[in-house]
This record gives sequence, structure tokens and C-alpha cells, in this order.
Amino acid sequence: MAHESFQTVDGEINWNAPMYRLYEKAKKNGKWNPADIDFTQDKMDFDGMTEDEKITSMPLVASFSAGEEAVTLDILPMVYAMARQGRLEDTMFLTTFMHDEAKHTEMFSRWQQQVGVGEMELSNFHSDSYKRIFYEELPGSMERLNVDDSPQAVIRAATVYNMVVEGILAESGYHSFREIFKKAGLLPGILQGIDYLNQDEGRHLQFGIYTIQRLCAGKDENLKVFHDYMDELWPDAFGVVEYLTSLYDVQMAQDWTNSSLDFDSEAMKKYAKRQFDIRKKQVDRVKNFNNAQELDEQLVKAGTV
Amino acid sequence: MAHESFQTVDGEINWNAPMYRLYEKAKKNGKWNPADIDFTQDKMDFDGMTEDEKITSMPLVASFSAGEEAVTLDILPMVYAMARQGRLEDTMFLTTFMHDEAKHTEMFSRWQQQVGVGEMELSNFHSDSYKRIFYEELPGSMERLNVDDSPQAVIRAATVYNMVVEGILAESGYHSFREIFKKAGLLPGILQGIDYLNQDEGRHLQFGIYTIQRLCAGKDENLKVFHDYMDELWPDAFGVVEYLTSLYDVQMAQDWTNSSLDFDSEAMKKYAKRQFDIRKKQVDRVKNFNNAQELDEQLVKAGTV
Repeated sequence: MAHESFQTVDGEINWNAPMYRLYEKAKKNGKWNPADIDFTQDKMDFDGMTEDEKITSMPLVASFSAGEEAVTLDILPMVYAMARQGRLEDTMFLTTFMHDEAKHTEMFSRWQQQVGVGEMELSNFHSDSYKRIFYEELPGSMERLNVDDSPQAVIRAATVYNMVVEGILAESGYHSFREIFKKAGLLPGILQGIDYLNQDEGRHLQFGIYTIQRLCAGKDENLKVFHDYMDELWPDAFGVVEYLTSLYDVQMAQDWTNSSLDFDSEAMKKYAKRQFDIRKKQVDRVKNFNNAQELDEQLVKAGTV
Repeated sequence: MAHESFQTVDGEINWNAPMYRLYEKAKKNGKWNPADIDFTQDKMDFDGMTEDEKITSMPLVASFSAGEEAVTLDILPMVYAMARQGRLEDTMFLTTFMHDEAKHTEMFSRWQQQVGVGEMELSNFHSDSYKRIFYEELPGSMERLNVDDSPQAVIRAATVYNMVVEGILAESGYHSFREIFKKAGLLPGILQGIDYLNQDEGRHLQFGIYTIQRLCAGKDENLKVFHDYMDELWPDAFGVVEYLTSLYDVQMAQDWTNSSLDFDSEAMKKYAKRQFDIRKKQVDRVKNFNNAQELDEQLVKAGTV
């Protein structure tokens, strides 16, 4: 496909495009470098943990490592679709998004290397639900964009990527990490990394919500595509959380388990469900707008991006 | 395409991969923000320039704006090909590359907006040679990777993108800007931006040289693909420079032209030819290696990346 014209030659960037404004935020707030995080205390903490305590951390780390590597690769069809559709400002924002994901992948790999589990094979901690979402649905719905970048296909891609993987599973994962290790006063390095990730994901969620909303504004049939796909994915999303919490519960139920870690599995499952409800509600606010232009104007006016 | 495994779950990042090391450099050195550049003096300079002096700057700006926007979009098939081929470290480096290009696009669009030529249609400054490279060959060779990511196709993509567009044309463009405006003591903001761009392009060139070299090590038939394509593109690459210098020469030859700018067209053309020769020589150093592994080891040992 040859180029026929260039936006910044015929005119300029749309400085008020919501995703351009988010790109400006990303440039300012996304400068952290995983290489600057000191994992020395994490290494000491890890070495001092009992075998059972170490085992508790592994499924979480295994979930995040694969998840971050998956999203680093799987965002590409979305970037490509936005570029092809002439959405220069969205494409510019997504360059910061991609770089964030590379840094997240790096952060977990660094941690594994520095605490000494770099070469450990962790994929046996991936449950069937995990595999359905990360090995199949996510790449499937993203790569669909290469042959079909219709509004419905873009909505489905943003739903599984931004709303389910980032908005439910990553958010629940951050929460678990903090619940288990922050409360126990352990692993300050990875906890600092998770704070950075959480901040980055906030912008990614804004992209996802905006992208779904602009395609649903005034189009109830598209909003239904979002809700239906969320409902379809929910059993496996919940399955991921349920599996991880059940591993913990089974471990703790054994008499011989030697662990000082404490974690409330039921509260965790409720937290995940709450994320699901929040994501739906956030997208539903699009009902206040008759079309994408009204949405753009309101976002700029409210200064939310 | 479903995921079957994840490198950072089964093991870890290859911390010694040349492109991983370049990614580390990019994180440290690529933090500049176009929004921080002050174009106030540029605006005053531009307002104080004669019409003829203003006209001299326009073809250069038009060439850069389209060029940066083109490369922001056209790098995507390369990133995708590296991701598909399981080259995680190259993909990670390319996330910094893409973000650099978005910032370059932003920098020129900001400048145009701030000196007051944002809405000016500049594409009539694109010559036939320019169009053949930026509108056709570049997107054509890059998008070829979507259906054919063979070594030959990757070499051609890196040749037109990194060696010709970045290594000859962008480098010559930076030089022209400095020759004309730095010497005249004008436009300090855009000159600062160009220094940043130049630094970023240094890393991009390293990616291009490495990518071509690793596919040519011990494979003379692939090295021939590189040289043949360089030779094929050279007339149009030179054509771009020739057209821009001739615009200047014609302008200056008129009795009524009122301009204090000074520029040596012949030296500029020689400069471009020298870039062509340098790129060929840089890639040719691969003859010292029998295979890609030897190249990787040498790069790490020499600390060049």
C-alpha cells in the first residue's frame, strides 16, 4: 500500500485528539526504567523465605511474565490497524504503550534473574483458563485485526486486551501481590515495579475505554458486542483468579506447610468480580453521547485526558 | 496464531543479545521530549526572515515531516516480523525505535505549528524521486514483510528504511539544516531537535546494520541482495538531494532574490554520496564473520552495542 498523503505535510497533528493528549501524559509519566530498580532486598528476602513461601510467589510471577510478554507481542495488530485507518494520534500513543509493555516484560525477567529463578520453567503454573485467554483468545482476537479491522473486531480486541487482560487480570494480580507481599514486608523491589506497572496500565485502560466508546457512541449494537464478549470471557477470567487462589488455599490447608504469608482468597475473588463490573460501567458511560465527536469534545473539555 | 510458549516463562531475556543492549541504551539516552523544546526564538527568527529565506526552509521541512510520519507508520511490519520470528530482544528495542519516530513526527509538526505554517500544504515540494522512495519503495518493501519475511525480504526492508532513508537522506537532511541555519545563527529550537533526532538515528542505524549483517554473515548471496538494492535505490536517493539543492540554486540565481542564507550545493551532494559509501562499508565489515553467532559475540566483546 503506497502512501498517498501525509497528515503533517498537508496540515498538522490534531493536538486535541484524546489519544494525542494521552501520548503527552505518557511521555511525561512513563519514564521509569526497570534497570533502576534495586532488587537486592528482594534477593535477600527470597533467600530467607521458606520453600512454601517461595512456591506461593511462583504462580503469580509465572502469570505476569507470560502475560507481559504476550501483550508486548499482541498489541501489534492494534497499532497496525490504527495506523492503517489513518489514526495518527492513536498510533503515536500506542508507541508509548508498546514501550511500556517491553519494560514490564523486562521488569519480571530481571526480577526472576536476580532472585535466581531465571532459568526455572514456570509454564506448568498456567491453568486451562489462563491458556484459553493468554494463549488463544488474546492473540486470536488481536490478529483478527490483520484481516478485519471493522468496529466490531476492534471492540473485541480492545475488550480482551484492555478490559479483561489489563483491566481485570492485571489489576487483580497487582492487588494480590500487594495483599501477600506488601503486608508481609517482603520483596520491595518488585512491589515498586508493580506500582509503576499499575500507573502505566491506567493509561492503557484509558486507551481501551476510549477505543470501545468511540465505536459504540450512538451505536447500541456495538455496545452489545462489548458486553457479550465481556460475558463470554468472564468464566475464564474468573477461572484464572480461582485457580491461583485455590493453589494457595490447598497449600495452606496442609499440616506440613511452613509459611507466614497470609491472604484472603474470598476477598480476592470479590475484587476480581468488582473489576469486571467497573469496566462495564466505565464503558457504559458512552450512553451519554450520540456520536464519537461528542465524546471527543467532552473528554477534552473535562480534561480527563 | 496461538502462543505456544513464552521465553521469559521458560527462561529469561537474553541479556547479551546485541539488540537487548541497544534497548538498554535507548532507555537511557532516548528520554528527550519534543514538548520541552522552546521554539520562541524560531518564531521570531522566522518572522524576521525574508520571503525568500522562508521559502528556502520549506522544502527541507516538507521532506522531514513526510519522512518522519512515513517511518512512524512503516516500521510496523518490521516489528511484526521480528516478533513473529521470536526475536523478543529485537522487538523490545523496536518499541523504543517506534516511540522515537513518533517524537520526530511530533517535533516537526510542533515547529510548523509554532512558527505559523502548520496548515500550509507542503507536499508540492515532494519531487518524483522523493515520491518513489517515500510513497512507494519504503512502504512497499516494508509491507512485503507481512507476506514474506525471508532473509532477503528483511534485508531489503532494512536497506531502504535504515540505510537509505535514515542513513543517507535523514543524515544529509540534518547536515543541510545545520549548514544553512546553524551557520546563519537562526532557528535554534529546530536545530536542537535535529541534534536529538541525529542521536536517535544513530541507534536506528545500528539496528539496520546489525539486522542486515546477521543475515549476511557467511552468506555472500545475501550480501549481494543488500548491495544490489542500494545501487538500485541510489539514483532516487541522490535525486532527492539533487532536487532540493537545485531548488536552492535556482532561487539564488535570480537577481531579485533577497536572502542572506548561504549553502554549498556541490558539497551537499558529495556529502550524500559519502553517506552512501559509508553505509556500504559498514555493512561490508560482516565479511569478517562466518556466521551470525560470531557477529553477536564480537559485538558484545567489543562493547559496540
